Amino acid sequence: MNIDGTPYRSVWLDGSTVRIFDQTALPWSLRVIDLETVGQAAHAITSMQVRGAPLIGAVAAYGLCLALNVDASTAAMERDAAMLAATRPTAVNLRWALDRMLTRLRNTPAAERVRVAYEEAALIADEDVAQNDAIGAHGLPLIAAVAARAKRRVNVLTHCNAGWLATVDWGTALAPIYKAHDSGIDLHVWVDETRPRNQGAALTAWELGKHGVAHTVVADNAGGHLMQRGDVDLVIVGTDRVTRTGDVANKIGTYLKALAAHDNEVPFWVASPSTTIDWSLRDGLREIPIEERAGSEVSDVTGLAADGRVTTVRVSPPESASANPAFDVTPARLVTGLITERGRCAATAPGLAALFPEFA
Amino acid sequence: MNIDGTPYRSVWLDGSTVRIFDQTALPWSLRVIDLETVGQAAHAITSMQVRGAPLIGAVAAYGLCLALNVDASTAAMERDAAMLAATRPTAVNLRWALDRMLTRLRNTPAAERVRVAYEEAALIADEDVAQNDAIGAHGLPLIAAVAARAKRRVNVLTHCNAGWLATVDWGTALAPIYKAHDSGIDLHVWVDETRPRNQGAALTAWELGKHGVAHTVVADNAGGHLMQRGDVDLVIVGTDRVTRTGDVANKIGTYLKALAAHDNEVPFWVASPSTTIDWSLRDGLREIPIEERAGSEVSDVTGLAADGRVTTVRVSPPESASANPAFDVTPARLVTGLITERGRCAATAPGLAALFPEFA
Repeated sequence: MNIDGTPYRSVWLDGSTVRIFDQTALPWSLRVIDLETVGQAAHAITSMQVRGAPLIGAVAAYGLCLALNVDASTAAMERDAAMLAATRPTAVNLRWALDRMLTRLRNTPAAERVRVAYEEAALIADEDVAQNDAIGAHGLPLIAAVAARAKRRVNVLTHCNAGWLATVDWGTALAPIYKAHDSGIDLHVWVDETRPRNQGAALTAWELGKHGVAHTVVADNAGGHLMQRGDVDLVIVGTDRVTRTGDVANKIGTYLKALAAHDNEVPFWVASPSTTIDWSLRDGLREIPIEERAGSEVSDVTGLAADGRVTTVRVSPPESASANPAFDVTPARLVTGLITERGRCAATAPGLAALFPEFA
Repeated sequence: MNIDGTPYRSVWLDGSTVRIFDQTALPWSLRVIDLETVGQAAHAITSMQVRGAPLIGAVAAYGLCLALNVDASTAAMERDAAMLAATRPTAVNLRWALDRMLTRLRNTPAAERVRVAYEEAALIADEDVAQNDAIGAHGLPLIAAVAARAKRRVNVLTHCNAGWLATVDWGTALAPIYKAHDSGIDLHVWVDETRPRNQGAALTAWELGKHGVAHTVVADNAGGHLMQRGDVDLVIVGTDRVTRTGDVANKIGTYLKALAAHDNEVPFWVASPSTTIDWSLRDGLREIPIEERAGSEVSDVTGLAADGRVTTVRVSPPESASANPAFDVTPARLVTGLITERGRCAATAPGLAALFPEFA
């Protein structure tokens, strides 16, 4: 997508160096970070310089390339892949990308592994872009249909950031929004700020603004009220892991929006590339591990102070503890449907199986 | 309630001067503000130096006393009361307290109005304390029953601040919690931070901590997940206005928690003094006015910076608009029951009528 008219991806190469934007610095500065070691790649994931299920899969794949630059032995490769896989627990793309890399690299002689690894990582990145492009195409009719029916501005609500910054390009949930915008549909996005890390306020608002999409940031608390008063036509969110039965793990708070959408008969769509589907799971609430992050992400908020400095402020008393579950699971019964690269389907086992018979 | 062992109220008199805590300065400093004019009282309400439906009622009543100190004529009294009534739109207590003051003062000769006004305002304040004390007594068995049944720590979730800082003393939603704590029940409170103004993180956490009640601050997004995993035994919230049919206006985001409670069979109780019931309304969603506050409350967050200064930081891009509806309405069907000063009742017209036949 574009930043002020110039197209970018969220991860790219300069020679053998992997480059990313430091997403913890957005929206205040557009800082490029060079990743030259697997340790730097792992740190970029754990510190959330990169985040978003598809993007951390791609960065992990490139991280394994960086590891192989130093030691292309099987033992080192397996060790470094396991280290990368352990950086974050909830998103399944991380494991998927590393498994795909290992499957190809295990059958590759050590001397050729670096070349093959960069080739495979590039394929993963390019396929992510193509998948999201297709998700955009399959999601676009949902927005176009509202525009055609209502003959007014379409209001979409999204939670967290499932835009191009969360993927290699296009985004998942935002891909249909970018397609709709680019095709001239009048639309407006309600952006949940997405506490505690404010990926909505800091990233989604930024990327929508840079691409020229009308949007308004709201507190996470506001979405139910907006739906009650008819100001949301549809909800589109991304996901970090979908079970084969259609349960959806996504950023904490997604479940609350799904409940409100259900209560107000607002369609609730989940943009789910097949790389985010965990075919080994049937019960999202019981089986998807939920990452618990530091309580300081709740007690402390970072933003731009009046003096122009990026500053962190504490909002709760120093004596008060904070808890920080980072994801929740939305049961399939609350999901209107999934938007995948192969088309839309019901959030059910038969729905997914019909689109992906090879996994079912 | 206590601050480090010393009992306080949230509004009190020093001679004819009205004193409050500046709640915008909490939890970082305990600053007392002297209100000496009706304009200062109105500013204290609009700027949210005082907030909470019962407390703004009491402060408005005292504000009218301050107005009468200057001009006790009927014309001035009516004008100043109307100005105070317009400070905030959603909470009904403000209008209720001013109507009560005017009803008494209109029949009082101008020369005696100041004395009578202070007398009536003190009655309003004292009755608020007594009401909340009774709400605590009627809510306590709900917590005690869980403790007796589960034989473990009881987990209560609350949203916003409906503690003693939101009332004159005790609080509404927190009154049962203080009673349970004081009676030796082992309990723990999940405190929603309550964006955008963080009344949970800044006020509820502070007052619970100062009174010695175990608590954990969570992002507003987390409550649904906590309920899904069985970590919430009951929800208790306050309210700014209840219709005669049991619809509940409360801080934005309350509706989302009510949906999650309903979906997980967690009891959802609303502490509602009779002063918060608007007997003229039947349909909360259509009839209760919802205050829209400044978008800067969403885009900007205030807290304590590392240098020890209270600092405001902007969290969203400067180009991004923000919207800020301050309340939402929870339909009565999602409310397990109301806790009033006369006992608990169903959130229905017959339930309320049985407790308050004189209004029904």
